[in-house]
Amino acid sequence: MSLLADLLSTVFERRYIGLSPGDRDNRPIGELADELMGTRGEVSGLVFAQKILDRFERMADEEKLGFFRHLAVAMNIDPARVRETLEAHEQAPGKHTYREFMVAAEPRRQELIRRLNQVPGATGQLVAMRSDLLRLGRGDVELQALDVDFRHLFASWFNRGFLVLRPINWESPAHILEKIIAYEAVHAIDSWEDLRRRLRPSDRRCFGFFHPSMPDEPLIFVEVALTKGVPGSIQGLLSGTRAELASEAANTAVFYSISNCQPGLAGISFGNSLIKQVVADLSAELAGLRTFVTLSPIPGLAGWLEKTGQDHENVDAQRLRSLAAHYLLAAKRPDGAPLDPVARFHLGNGALVHAVHADADTSPKGRAQSGGAMVSYLYDLPKISQNHERFATTGQIAASQEVRSLSNAAAKIQA
Amino acid sequence: MSLLADLLSTVFERRYIGLSPGDRDNRPIGELADELMGTRGEVSGLVFAQKILDRFERMADEEKLGFFRHLAVAMNIDPARVRETLEAHEQAPGKHTYREFMVAAEPRRQELIRRLNQVPGATGQLVAMRSDLLRLGRGDVELQALDVDFRHLFASWFNRGFLVLRPINWESPAHILEKIIAYEAVHAIDSWEDLRRRLRPSDRRCFGFFHPSMPDEPLIFVEVALTKGVPGSIQGLLSGTRAELASEAANTAVFYSISNCQPGLAGISFGNSLIKQVVADLSAELAGLRTFVTLSPIPGLAGWLEKTGQDHENVDAQRLRSLAAHYLLAAKRPDGAPLDPVARFHLGNGALVHAVHADADTSPKGRAQSGGAMVSYLYDLPKISQNHERFATTGQIAASQEVRSLSNAAAKIQA
Amino acid sequence: MSLLADLLSTVFERRYIGLSPGDRDNRPIGELADELMGTRGEVSGLVFAQKILDRFERMADEEKLGFFRHLAVAMNIDPARVRETLEAHEQAPGKHTYREFMVAAEPRRQELIRRLNQVPGATGQLVAMRSDLLRLGRGDVELQALDVDFRHLFASWFNRGFLVLRPINWESPAHILEKIIAYEAVHAIDSWEDLRRRLRPSDRRCFGFFHPSMPDEPLIFVEVALTKGVPGSIQGLLSGTRAELASEAANTAVFYSISNCQPGLAGISFGNSLIKQVVADLSAELAGLRTFVTLSPIPGLAGWLEKTGQDHENVDAQRLRSLAAHYLLAAKRPDGAPLDPVARFHLGNGALVHAVHADADTSPKGRAQSGGAMVSYLYDLPKISQNHERFATTGQIAASQEVRSLSNAAAKIQA
Amino acid sequence: MSLLADLLSTVFERRYIGLSPGDRDNRPIGELADELMGTRGEVSGLVFAQKILDRFERMADEEKLGFFRHLAVAMNIDPARVRETLEAHEQAPGKHTYREFMVAAEPRRQELIRRLNQVPGATGQLVAMRSDLLRLGRGDVELQALDVDFRHLFASWFNRGFLVLRPINWESPAHILEKIIAYEAVHAIDSWEDLRRRLRPSDRRCFGFFHPSMPDEPLIFVEVALTKGVPGSIQGLLSGTRAELASEAANTAVFYSISNCQPGLAGISFGNSLIKQVVADLSAELAGLRTFVTLSPIPGLAGWLEKTGQDHENVDAQRLRSLAAHYLLAAKRPDGAPLDPVARFHLGNGALVHAVHADADTSPKGRAQSGGAMVSYLYDLPKISQNHERFATTGQIAASQEVRSLSNAAAKIQA
Repeated sequence: MSLLADLLSTVFERRYIGLSPGDRDNRPIGELADELMGTRGEVSGLVFAQKILDRFERMADEEKLGFFRHLAVAMNIDPARVRETLEAHEQAPGKHTYREFMVAAEPRRQELIRRLNQVPGATGQLVAMRSDLLRLGRGDVELQALDVDFRHLFASWFNRGFLVLRPINWESPAHILEKIIAYEAVHAIDSWEDLRRRLRPSDRRCFGFFHPSMPDEPLIFVEVALTKGVPGSIQGLLSGTRAELASEAANTAVFYSISNCQPGLAGISFGNSLIKQVVADLSAELAGLRTFVTLSPIPGLAGWLEKTGQDHENVDAQRLRSLAAHYLLAAKRPDGAPLDPVARFHLGNGALVHAVHADADTSPKGRAQSGGAMVSYLYDLPKISQNHERFATTGQIAASQEVRSLSNAAAKIQA
Repeated sequence: MSLLADLLSTVFERRYIGLSPGDRDNRPIGELADELMGTRGEVSGLVFAQKILDRFERMADEEKLGFFRHLAVAMNIDPARVRETLEAHEQAPGKHTYREFMVAAEPRRQELIRRLNQVPGATGQLVAMRSDLLRLGRGDVELQALDVDFRHLFASWFNRGFLVLRPINWESPAHILEKIIAYEAVHAIDSWEDLRRRLRPSDRRCFGFFHPSMPDEPLIFVEVALTKGVPGSIQGLLSGTRAELASEAANTAVFYSISNCQPGLAGISFGNSLIKQVVADLSAELAGLRTFVTLSPIPGLAGWLEKTGQDHENVDAQRLRSLAAHYLLAAKRPDGAPLDPVARFHLGNGALVHAVHADADTSPKGRAQSGGAMVSYLYDLPKISQNHERFATTGQIAASQEVRSLSNAAAKIQA
Repeated sequence: MSLLADLLSTVFERRYIGLSPGDRDNRPIGELADELMGTRGEVSGLVFAQKILDRFERMADEEKLGFFRHLAVAMNIDPARVRETLEAHEQAPGKHTYREFMVAAEPRRQELIRRLNQVPGATGQLVAMRSDLLRLGRGDVELQALDVDFRHLFASWFNRGFLVLRPINWESPAHILEKIIAYEAVHAIDSWEDLRRRLRPSDRRCFGFFHPSMPDEPLIFVEVALTKGVPGSIQGLLSGTRAELASEAANTAVFYSISNCQPGLAGISFGNSLIKQVVADLSAELAGLRTFVTLSPIPGLAGWLEKTGQDHENVDAQRLRSLAAHYLLAAKRPDGAPLDPVARFHLGNGALVHAVHADADTSPKGRAQSGGAMVSYLYDLPKISQNHERFATTGQIAASQEVRSLSNAAAKIQA
Repeated sequence: MSLLADLLSTVFERRYIGLSPGDRDNRPIGELADELMGTRGEVSGLVFAQKILDRFERMADEEKLGFFRHLAVAMNIDPARVRETLEAHEQAPGKHTYREFMVAAEPRRQELIRRLNQVPGATGQLVAMRSDLLRLGRGDVELQALDVDFRHLFASWFNRGFLVLRPINWESPAHILEKIIAYEAVHAIDSWEDLRRRLRPSDRRCFGFFHPSMPDEPLIFVEVALTKGVPGSIQGLLSGTRAELASEAANTAVFYSISNCQPGLAGISFGNSLIKQVVADLSAELAGLRTFVTLSPIPGLAGWLEKTGQDHENVDAQRLRSLAAHYLLAAKRPDGAPLDPVARFHLGNGALVHAVHADADTSPKGRAQSGGAMVSYLYDLPKISQNHERFATTGQIAASQEVRSLSNAAAKIQA
C-alpha cells in the first residue's frame, strides 16, 4: 500500500500547507526568479519556487505575460557565450569545457523551470502554465521560442517510460471520472448515466495514461467497445438499449474515442503508445480478441467535397463511401500528407484504412462534417512497423482491398 | 489501490515479457541505436530500445566501452551545425530557428537516452548504465563528456518534485529491506536481527527517497534515532540492550546514518532535501521534538592530524575534542571549503557544528579515522537559509559557542 | 497493497467464475441442502453451497418460500433430542455431553447458513436472502422463527469488531457513491451534483461502516456538516450557495443524516457505534471541534399533535418549538419509551435533547411531519454513559435547560 | 487503497490508544464482565470490553484460571430455564418463544465473548485467550466445556468465506515473514537466507490464509515447489544449489510443508480449503501444471514398525517402501481410521496415496520417524469428492497401482 500512499501524500501535502497570505512575498516575480536561481536557491529553493507558483496562479493575464517575457528575454541564451564556450570546447575537448558549453547553450529559463518543479505537485501547475503561455503567446516570436523550452522539458518528463497506464472504470474515483466527462472530446458524455453506460458494461473498457506527479489528472484516454465484428455505426455502438456482450465472447476491440486532456501538453504525443499498450493489454486479458480497429470520424470530408465541388448531400450510401475512401487515400496537403487529420494520426501510427461506413454518425455534427460517414482504421500489430515506415518514407497509405476498390470507383467517376 | 498496482504492473511487465533468445537482434548495437533514432523509431521504438537495453546488460566491459564510444563520438554535437543554426536564429529569431539551434546544440545521444527510457522499467537500467560509464570512463575525456549528458538528463528526471519520501520500517517488503542492509554505508548492518533493531523499536525511524519508475530501489535513505538529549556515542545509540523510548517522550531526533544507494546517480544530490523533508515530517508527527541533529563521523580528522604532525592517539578526551573542533572549523581545502567531506555536506545544507564528542565511535574504523571522535551538526530550520548563504558566499562556518571555544583552545595550543 | 487486493480478489473471484448453465444442478433445493450437510459436504461444500446460492438468486418468490419452509421445518430443533442431551449433560457434565447438547439445541439450519457462507462473496447474498425472508415471512410464525436464526448469526458476523469505518468522499469509487445516492433515507440526494455538494467541500464529511466480506456495500453511513455554531435549518445547511468553511475553522460537527443500507440487516444495530467512532475520529483530526450534534427530523410530531387535538399549522414558531419540546420529552409509548422513533435512537445512545428549531425543514415532507420543526441531539462524550444508563433504567430523558423550559411552557398551556 | 488502510487503522488504532495505567479498573474481572453484560454495556461496551482484554493480558495463569472458571460456572446455561423455554416454545411456537429458548440454550458466556470482540483488534486477543484456555484447562471438565463455546464461535468467525488467501513472497512485509520463520512446523527455516530460498526463486510459492481482523497473523500457510516430475527427496528439493526452474516450465506443484500458526484455533480446520484454493489459483496462473502432490512425512512409520516387531533399520530401500506403503494402506486405529495422522488429513481431503519414496528425508528427524521414507499424496481435483466420500463412508483408501503393489508385497512377506 505504501508507495501510493506516500506518493499521494508527497504530492498533496503542499495543498494543505500552502502559503498563508502573511507569507506572501510581494516583490516582483522576476526578483523571486532571480532568488531561486541564486546561491540561496539551493537551500531555500522550495520556498522560492512555491512563492513563484502561488504568485503565478493569482496573476491576471497581463502579469503572466510580463513573467513570460522576463523568462523569454532576461533568461535567454547569450549567443556570444555560446560561441565562446564552443570554441573553448573545440580547442580543449573534455568534461569541463563540454559542460560549460552545455550550460551556455541552454537558456537559464530551463533551469528555472526545473527548479520550480522541485515543489511537490508542481508538475501540474507547470503544465497549466504552459497552457497559459500557448494561449497568450500566439503570434509572439519570443514567447513561441520560450514555448520550445517548455516543450523540450515536458517531452523529457512525460517520457513514455514515466507514464502509467490505468484502467478507468466504474470503480474509479469520482474526481477522476468527472474529468473524463469534462475531457471527452469526440462523442460528448452527457451525464453520469451516460458515463456509466460507457464504463460499467462487461463489453466496455477505458484506459488512460497518468503521470505519477499528477495522479489525479488523466493525460489522454481511450474508450473501447468489445464487439462481435467491426461495427458500422457509432449511435448503434453507444445505444443504451443494445444487448450487452460477455467480454469473453468478443472478437473485436473498437477504439471509438481518443481524447487528449491537457492543453499544456500540446505537441507531446501519447496516442500512439496508448493504443499499442491497450492492444497489448487487451490481447493478454481476452484471448478471443482478433481484430483491433477504430471507429473514427472523417472531420475533413464535407469541407473537401465542397471545395472540390462534389455534392455529398444527395448521394446514396454507396456513393458516399466511395467518395470518403477516395478522400482518405488521395486527398493530400501540399506537403504530401493526408488532408484528414485523424487519418494522419492513425496512418502515422502504422494503422491501415480498413473500412468506410455510411450512416455511421447520424448526429448533426456527424452529418455536417462527413455526411454521416465514418472510417475504421485497423491496428494489425505485425504489420504496423512496415505500414508506418512506408507511410513515413514514401507517403504510401495502407488500405484494405475493399477500401481501395471504393476509392478507385470514385476516382473513375471523378475522371 | 489502483495507481500503485498500475504503476507496478507498468514497470514490471517487461521483466516477465523480456525478449526470448530467439528475438535477439545480433546486429551491432550501433546499428540498433541508429534504427531507434530513425523513422521507424517512432513506431518501433519500444522494441529497439528494449533490444539495446537487453543487449547492453549481457555485454562484457569491452563491448560496453565500444557502445559508449559510439555515443560519445558518432552522436556528438556538430560544432559547424551549432554555429550555423545559431547564426540563423540571430538573423531571424523565432520558434523555428530557435528549435533548430536547440536540436543542434544538444548531442543526439541525449535523445537516444530519452528513447531508451521509453521502455517501462528502463530508468533503473539507465542508472546502472551510467554506473558502468563512470567505472569504465575514468580518465577518458570523451567518455567523461558523455557522462555530462547522462547527468544532465538524470538531474531533470530525478528532480526533487518527482521523488517520493517513504518510511522504511519493519512492515516494509523484504526485498526493499535487504537493499537497506546492502546499501548502508556508514554503520554496517550485520544481520536481519540488527536491521530489526534499527527499524522496529518505537524510538527508531528510517526514511528513503524513491523514484516512481524504480519503486524497488531506494535512492538514498537516512536512519534516525529518537532520544532525550543529544547522544554522544554511536555504540550507545545502537546498543541492543538500551532502554526503548516511547516516541512521544523524545525531544531530539538524531540522524545517525545517511547512505546514497545508486552509484549511477553520483553527483545528483538528494541528501539536503531528504533531511529537510524528514525534519518537517517528524515535526508534524511528534510535537515533542525540539532538536534535530546528526551524529556524524569525522572521516578526515586522523589524516589531518597526522599530516599536520599532531598526535591524536595519546591525547585525552578533552584535548581530542578541541583538535576535532579546530579541524572542523579551520582546516580548509585550497578552494577554501572545509577539508572534511561530511562537514562540507552538512554545512552546505545550512547546518551548524553543534557539539564534538570523544569516545563516540569506539569501533576500529572510528578509532582509525578520528580517534573515536564524532560530531553533531544541528539542523535549526529557521537559521538554515542564513547559515547556508553565509557559508556559500563567505565560507563562514556556523558553530555553537562551545565548539568555537574548543576550537580556540586548540588554536592557542597549536600557536 | 496486497491484503486489499487479495481480499477483493477472494471476494470477487466467484463472480467471474460463476456456474455455467451446464453446471446447474436442477434437483430440488432441499436435496442440495442435504448434500451440503452430508459427508460429501466437507469436501464438496463450496460447490454445493454455490449451487444453492445461485439457484436461490434465480428463484421466484413462491420457490423461495418453499426453500425457507424447508429450513424452518425440516431443519428445526428436535425438542426430544434437546431434552435427552440436556439430561445426559446434567448426569455427566463434560466436553462431550456439552457439545452434544449444543448441537441438539441449535437448529441444523444455522450450520447450513454457515456452510453457505463458505463461498467467497456469499455474505452479501445471505444478507439479501434474509431481506427476502423478512418480506415473504411476514405473519408466518415458522418463518419468523427462522429469521431469529439468521439474525443470531448476522449479529455474530457483523460484530462491531469486524466492521471497518471508511470515509466516503469525492475520491471514493463511483460504484460506492451510486449506492450512497440510492440508500440516502433522510434527505434525498437528487443527482451526482447534489452528491458532490455533500462530499467535496472542505466542511463536509461522510463515513460508513463496511464489512470486509462485502467491500462494495456500505452497511450504514452518516453525513456530517462542519459549522460554526449549531445550525437551525437543513435547507440552509445544504444550500448550494452557502459559503464554504475551512474545516479547521469549524467548532461544531452536525450529523444531519444517518441511513441504514441493508434491509437484510434489520435489527442489527450499527448507528450507535458509528456515531461514536466518527465523533472520536473527527475529534482527533480537527482539534477545533467542541460540539457534536445532530440536526434530526421529528417524524412523529404532526401525528401526535393531531391525535391529541392540538393545532400545529396556525401556531407561531415559538409555540411550535414548545410543542415539539414537549412532545420529545413527554410523549410516550405504552411501554414508557419515547413516542418518537428518532428520539428513541439518539436517547438510547446516550445523547440529550439539545435544541428545538422551527422553520428548520421547509420541504413538503418536513412541513407535513413536523410543521417544519427539527431537533438537535447532543453527543457529549463524557456524559453519554450516564445519560444512557438513566434512560435505560428509569426512562429519564436528558435535555438542555432551554428545551426543558420550552417543554414546561407547553405543558402549562396544555394544562 | 482505502479499504485496506481503513481496515488497518481500525484494527490498529487501539494499540496506540491503549488504556493508560490511570484508566485501569481494578475491580474483580467478574464484576467488569457483569458490567459488560448489563444495561450500560450497550453504550459503554467498548470501554468495558477493552478493560477486560487489557486486564486479561496482564494476568498470571492463576488469575486467568479464575476468570475462565467464572465464565464456565457463573455464565453457564441454566437447565431449568432451558426446559421451561423449550416447553413454552412447544406450546406456542413463534418468534418470541423461539428466541427465548435460544437465549436460554446458549450460555451467556458466548454473548460475553461476542461483546469482547467488539473492540477493534480484539479477535487476535480472543484467539490467544483460547490458547491459554487449552493450556490451562487440560483435564478440567468445566473448562473443556467452556472451550466448546470458544470453538463454536471461532468456527463461525473463521468461516472459510471470511478468510483471505494471500501469496507470501519476498515482497511481503518483514513482520509477516518473521512469523513464517517462527511458525514453520515441518521443515524448520534456519535463517532469513533460508526463507529467501523458499520464497524468492521463480519455482517457489507460499500462500497463507488470513482473517481481515488479524491482518498481521497468518492462520495457516503452505509452501510449494514447482518442479518437473514428482520429486523423491526433501533435501534435494530444498537444496541451495539446485537449478532454478522457470515457473512456466513446471508441470508439477509440490506441497512440501503445511503449518498451522495459531494454537488458539485448534480444531478449526483450514488445510483442506487452503490446498484446494491454492490448486485452483496455481492452475489458473500456470497452464503447464498437470500434477498436484505433496511430499509428506510419515511420522508414525518407525513407531509402528517397532511396535509390530519389524526391522526398518537394516532393510533396503525397496523393502522400506513396501513397508511404508503397507503401513499407510493397512495400519488402522481402533476406530478404523488410518494410524498415520498426516495420512488421515490428506485422505480425508480426498487425496490418494500416490508414491512412496525411500531416502527422501535424510535428516535425523526423518531417519528417526520413518527411516527416511516419505510419501506423496496426489490431489486429483476431479476425483477428490469421490475419494473423500468412499473414505468417509467405507474407510476405503485411494492409492495408485504402484503403491498398492508395494503394499501387497509387504503383506505377503508379513504373512
